[in-house]
Amino acid sequence: MSKLITRSVQTHALPLLDRFLAVRRQTEALAEPLSLEDQTVQSMPDASPTKWHLAHTTWFFETFLLKPQLSDYRPFDPSYEYLFNSYYEAVGPRHPRPQRGIITRPGVDEVLAYRRHVTEAMVPLIAQSNATDLIELGLHHEQQHQELILMDIKHALSLNPLLSAYAPEPMPATTGAPISWLDFEGGLVEMGHAGESFAFDNEGPRHRIWVDPFALASRLVTCGEYEAFIADGGYRRPGFWLSAGWDCVQQRDWDAPLYWHEDGIFTLGGLRPRRAEEPVCHVSFYEAAAYAKWAGKRLPREAEWEIAAADVALDGNLLEDGLRHPAPADGEGLAQMIGDVWEWTASPYVAYPGFREPAGAIGEYNGKFMANQMVLRGGCAATPRDHIRTTYRNFFPPDARWMFGGIRLAEDLR
Amino acid sequence: MSKLITRSVQTHALPLLDRFLAVRRQTEALAEPLSLEDQTVQSMPDASPTKWHLAHTTWFFETFLLKPQLSDYRPFDPSYEYLFNSYYEAVGPRHPRPQRGIITRPGVDEVLAYRRHVTEAMVPLIAQSNATDLIELGLHHEQQHQELILMDIKHALSLNPLLSAYAPEPMPATTGAPISWLDFEGGLVEMGHAGESFAFDNEGPRHRIWVDPFALASRLVTCGEYEAFIADGGYRRPGFWLSAGWDCVQQRDWDAPLYWHEDGIFTLGGLRPRRAEEPVCHVSFYEAAAYAKWAGKRLPREAEWEIAAADVALDGNLLEDGLRHPAPADGEGLAQMIGDVWEWTASPYVAYPGFREPAGAIGEYNGKFMANQMVLRGGCAATPRDHIRTTYRNFFPPDARWMFGGIRLAEDLR
Amino acid sequence: MSKLITRSVQTHALPLLDRFLAVRRQTEALAEPLSLEDQTVQSMPDASPTKWHLAHTTWFFETFLLKPQLSDYRPFDPSYEYLFNSYYEAVGPRHPRPQRGIITRPGVDEVLAYRRHVTEAMVPLIAQSNATDLIELGLHHEQQHQELILMDIKHALSLNPLLSAYAPEPMPATTGAPISWLDFEGGLVEMGHAGESFAFDNEGPRHRIWVDPFALASRLVTCGEYEAFIADGGYRRPGFWLSAGWDCVQQRDWDAPLYWHEDGIFTLGGLRPRRAEEPVCHVSFYEAAAYAKWAGKRLPREAEWEIAAADVALDGNLLEDGLRHPAPADGEGLAQMIGDVWEWTASPYVAYPGFREPAGAIGEYNGKFMANQMVLRGGCAATPRDHIRTTYRNFFPPDARWMFGGIRLAEDLR
Amino acid sequence: MSKLITRSVQTHALPLLDRFLAVRRQTEALAEPLSLEDQTVQSMPDASPTKWHLAHTTWFFETFLLKPQLSDYRPFDPSYEYLFNSYYEAVGPRHPRPQRGIITRPGVDEVLAYRRHVTEAMVPLIAQSNATDLIELGLHHEQQHQELILMDIKHALSLNPLLSAYAPEPMPATTGAPISWLDFEGGLVEMGHAGESFAFDNEGPRHRIWVDPFALASRLVTCGEYEAFIADGGYRRPGFWLSAGWDCVQQRDWDAPLYWHEDGIFTLGGLRPRRAEEPVCHVSFYEAAAYAKWAGKRLPREAEWEIAAADVALDGNLLEDGLRHPAPADGEGLAQMIGDVWEWTASPYVAYPGFREPAGAIGEYNGKFMANQMVLRGGCAATPRDHIRTTYRNFFPPDARWMFGGIRLAEDLR
Repeated sequence: MSKLITRSVQTHALPLLDRFLAVRRQTEALAEPLSLEDQTVQSMPDASPTKWHLAHTTWFFETFLLKPQLSDYRPFDPSYEYLFNSYYEAVGPRHPRPQRGIITRPGVDEVLAYRRHVTEAMVPLIAQSNATDLIELGLHHEQQHQELILMDIKHALSLNPLLSAYAPEPMPATTGAPISWLDFEGGLVEMGHAGESFAFDNEGPRHRIWVDPFALASRLVTCGEYEAFIADGGYRRPGFWLSAGWDCVQQRDWDAPLYWHEDGIFTLGGLRPRRAEEPVCHVSFYEAAAYAKWAGKRLPREAEWEIAAADVALDGNLLEDGLRHPAPADGEGLAQMIGDVWEWTASPYVAYPGFREPAGAIGEYNGKFMANQMVLRGGCAATPRDHIRTTYRNFFPPDARWMFGGIRLAEDLR
Repeated sequence: MSKLITRSVQTHALPLLDRFLAVRRQTEALAEPLSLEDQTVQSMPDASPTKWHLAHTTWFFETFLLKPQLSDYRPFDPSYEYLFNSYYEAVGPRHPRPQRGIITRPGVDEVLAYRRHVTEAMVPLIAQSNATDLIELGLHHEQQHQELILMDIKHALSLNPLLSAYAPEPMPATTGAPISWLDFEGGLVEMGHAGESFAFDNEGPRHRIWVDPFALASRLVTCGEYEAFIADGGYRRPGFWLSAGWDCVQQRDWDAPLYWHEDGIFTLGGLRPRRAEEPVCHVSFYEAAAYAKWAGKRLPREAEWEIAAADVALDGNLLEDGLRHPAPADGEGLAQMIGDVWEWTASPYVAYPGFREPAGAIGEYNGKFMANQMVLRGGCAATPRDHIRTTYRNFFPPDARWMFGGIRLAEDLR
Repeated sequence: MSKLITRSVQTHALPLLDRFLAVRRQTEALAEPLSLEDQTVQSMPDASPTKWHLAHTTWFFETFLLKPQLSDYRPFDPSYEYLFNSYYEAVGPRHPRPQRGIITRPGVDEVLAYRRHVTEAMVPLIAQSNATDLIELGLHHEQQHQELILMDIKHALSLNPLLSAYAPEPMPATTGAPISWLDFEGGLVEMGHAGESFAFDNEGPRHRIWVDPFALASRLVTCGEYEAFIADGGYRRPGFWLSAGWDCVQQRDWDAPLYWHEDGIFTLGGLRPRRAEEPVCHVSFYEAAAYAKWAGKRLPREAEWEIAAADVALDGNLLEDGLRHPAPADGEGLAQMIGDVWEWTASPYVAYPGFREPAGAIGEYNGKFMANQMVLRGGCAATPRDHIRTTYRNFFPPDARWMFGGIRLAEDLR
Repeated sequence: MSKLITRSVQTHALPLLDRFLAVRRQTEALAEPLSLEDQTVQSMPDASPTKWHLAHTTWFFETFLLKPQLSDYRPFDPSYEYLFNSYYEAVGPRHPRPQRGIITRPGVDEVLAYRRHVTEAMVPLIAQSNATDLIELGLHHEQQHQELILMDIKHALSLNPLLSAYAPEPMPATTGAPISWLDFEGGLVEMGHAGESFAFDNEGPRHRIWVDPFALASRLVTCGEYEAFIADGGYRRPGFWLSAGWDCVQQRDWDAPLYWHEDGIFTLGGLRPRRAEEPVCHVSFYEAAAYAKWAGKRLPREAEWEIAAADVALDGNLLEDGLRHPAPADGEGLAQMIGDVWEWTASPYVAYPGFREPAGAIGEYNGKFMANQMVLRGGCAATPRDHIRTTYRNFFPPDARWMFGGIRLAEDLR
């Protein structure tokens, strides 16, 4: 599997058509290790079948580009408009999300034919269209679903008592580093995306914000550190927890991160022993916040994270590295900001000052989810390299654990 | 599909080994029209994936015959004991029923290899074993699952907006018959199975019972007749309904049998126009009872049905006919007793006087379900021909609709 | 409390008006030990507030007698038709059952005024009416609710950690008896109510039935005997249980009868030590059936119970005795058939052959509940003395435990 | 009722003991219009019975002051520690919140005796204690529950088809005002509580924040304006809604604010016609946000609201005015900031920079709820006058409607 994706591909340096074809190919490559049966199932309402992801990312180009821009475009199958709409109310009714796993037809082969049909129709359109923003959006949308393919199949495989692997997991090259603290002055700063390059609507507008002085941990919290939290009664002592988090602990019998088994951990490579130095992963916001409270620290606010990340290289343990799991830290200074795990922040996901949704169905992309979610930053080991930015705002409900979410600590200065 | 199963096969006239091989083949033939994706999904907790049925019927022979009887038997995969146990507490823990659809591995190919492994290991055992009762039970068990394969995949396909077919549905040869009433004297009679031939434990012991004089309708209630019930406010007037049935009507928004679409009906052949003369099918006990009350009649008790069926030929519209749907009645006298639809009776499913469960896990086969279920009689168009008997007691909860359940009316005499 | 109800009152020997007044007074006497707060709450959807029972039994006379029969009758409050209808669809819409406990107004005082208004209006009607059947039905209906008042408030008080008493519980006079077995020949017998005296519609028609020879235990199963079942893994070993019963055990964490506390038992007299010789009570049908299977016996069918009870005196530990809890057996022969606990039978609650519901709303009294319920026989310590008959068919779902339900064993002869 | 609470009482100007006695009296006065039955029920898990509020506010003083500070204090009843703990994990286990309505005992009279016992024991403690901060906290805690008593009983009465009144509702003196917009410069400002006077922990620390220029509406959104939103398809067009809000609309069948009936509105005075000029009330955050989007505006952030309120007089339509419902605006300038309705802000409820929870159980007061809630500002017609501050942060989940929540619009400048 890791051979299928060449690390050196930096698709955003390529011409748009080449990037389009590369992203489309990468999605299909991610499905290749999976059987037709694997690609069919939905393990929970929040997750989707692999073949649904293959189809929905195709639906996006068909719906927002081919149909509006090509007067003679022939839809591959009219019923797909209903079957593969995710959540766009303005496009029309759609198949209920919790029942995506019941749709056995079209099968994988037919979905791949749908992909070819749309990819081929897009080629001339890309050459002539001036809708490059929408095409860019479609590519970044598809890259989001590349990560979702891995998150979702990991969850499905984890529920099978066989605990079989998606693909072999290579051993990481790094072995861990001690934690240190880096100070930041804060002040009246700017955050958010600006300029010509692509960003999602929710990353802007760039705006001023006051930030008090703070410190950030140099690396992510490790499994070994998290084990100490558990050993100290982390999941038994309500005083560490937000009230809603404590309810989760009790109602769902949480006593460790998702995918932990006694001394083992289930990864996309199957079940293997846990390593003390690897970052803790698949924790909810509630667990991240409880850990931070136990440690006498707090989670960073998203402005703090973004300021700190400003000078960080956009590189790290990402999808193309083929580990598909966070790796121990390495070296000095601020490490692991990009890749490894999405870092929970203390910031609820709300609109930046001056934010306005775009007109039309595309306006539903991000804005309507600005309630009951927390922001995560930095990408993870399943995020495509040219998809991540320091202004990127990922968001999930505070009880979600199936994404690659981890913990970096912060504290107040003075 | 209908060609795959030769109508002339009457497996219970064959030597045991030939019957074993024929039954095993027939199960696999039923799966052949389905894609790997089709065979993977579970559309509701009561239903199971096709490949689970393929595996579980194999598990039955492995667990109850190969493992206890062959000291050198090598299980195909030790994890299957857990994965493919349906409900036998005495065998050990098992995979939760509602999550059968998440098990993508083993895939269909591996399950078929499992089938071959067990079928081959059974061949010498059949030649030498004196456990013919258990082998017979295993064959009848597998035939029950043949019917379940069709019931369950019909439900799954019905939830896909494409409403695609399992296989083409042939046009029935019959065109309907007027209803007439046949009188029965009753009296102190005997019911239940006796003798050497195979029957499930719950069909015996044969015992005496007093039956008052009654009449039975000569044929099943048709779609046309049921439409008149609907047109008369059948689903809007509580006076026809048992209280629990009326709750179902309201909570589940029932306004027609399962699989009805305006003027159409979804069958294993896809969506097609409904025919007035074909039997109504996929109704719950509550609907059957409400229809009977509306019609001024009642449902037959199971003793009545069995007495009336005593002289009926064990033939009708069954699985091997390849219609996979009930057909209009034909000819005179008591018609459609065998095949077409399972006929709801007024009798709750309880033990006959003197009934004792067999010892061991096999004792869980029928006895532990003797609560909250109603008896149905006579087999349906998805029942294998040599599987049905006049003493056969099928049972389902009163709200279940996904089996081929229909209605025959009865009334008191004098 | 026990002084309020004179044991010698045998109301069915009285003239109708005197009985009417006695029954109405008795209902009010049952509410007197309760505070206004006690009378307001509903502890679960199956239970009702005391003041709702006070009002609903009054609504019954107003709806079925005063309104139809007295042209100049002035309803006490028109809104009560909606508020206090229990389940009569033909009467019109009604307040949702699970929300009876939210109705704080009318309060208890206003409900008592409603009772006086209706009682007074009934007096002249009783003198002149020839609807004595309906009046009798209203009285027996009200007596059913007398028992429900005690069942329901017991449940509510049991959920309060204070476990306070409804009223002091007198010490029973009896101290237990050894178990013996009584044989019955069975044969072609008759069962069901016949004759002029009052019975509910579901007790008839009297009809023939064949009964094989059987034996009945001379007394009820005791707490001491049930403790042995628990000690033997009764609630941990699935082999004793019906499948649906085992689901209850696991989902509801059952490990003892309702109202058991370690060595104690909660009764209407509060929490006190359990006595080995007193009958086990507040078990579900599932527990009764599991106990019987553990004991190597079975539950009696309702025909068996009725035959055996034919010569039994209609006396026992009933409401007027003031114990409000089953008492140990006493003496020889067939004991405890009447009173103490309702005895679970092996018989689902279905219509007798020839049963027809009466016309009109009153037809909803019993018939529409003939699904998913089991028959219990013989009355309990909360049943009014002149309310019980040997043909009386009480019915509850197999998982219900808040009624006074207990166990008598039976076995096959030969 | 309105006479019971004298408007001129400004309790925070009084000596602590006088204020303590006044607050305690006011709580009891709020319960006086209610029957014992009214005071017993719990209409939903989020609400509590009146008598629970009476007891819990007393438990607070007993638990946090009397028990720790008076060595010879005799608890009124040891079981109350369990029964009347709301959510303090550090104090110990507690009665489950959804079952508060089942606790009929202690009754209202015993709860009032409990109140007297604790009030009397507090009097000497107040004279001598230096724990004035905790006493202040207890008083403000009790005032919060005064508002909850009204919110909760309003909900309970609204579910009774009789729709009866808590107490007569006086006619407000004001008749409405046109809307205008007030501009604010923003900049680098400070927000949060500072100084010696009482505030909850979550109102501090005072800290710097950057605010862009904005405008606020001069008054609240009225029922008439909200009716225009409904008439324009407000509840039928998903484009106005947050995704989670639209789910609520569909799953709960929302089509108007809580307590609206066709042209009427249910208030604590019963059902009466709706007035176009009165503020819309009992809307969720989702409805407030949808209205704002429909209107082309947005909700204010809490910093904006606090800056704007800095110079506002701490007066308005509050509990002591006796209207118990928001009144139309009056006069010029920024109106209705204090009282009438709690104003939904666009700000999730999170910790201010530098916030630390106090040590011990009291630390659970506010901090542990900082997830999944939105901030509301300004108090309402059920808030005691000396309880509200401009820094006061109320918080509720975005779907909550039973508090007096309303809408003020904001917009960006430039």
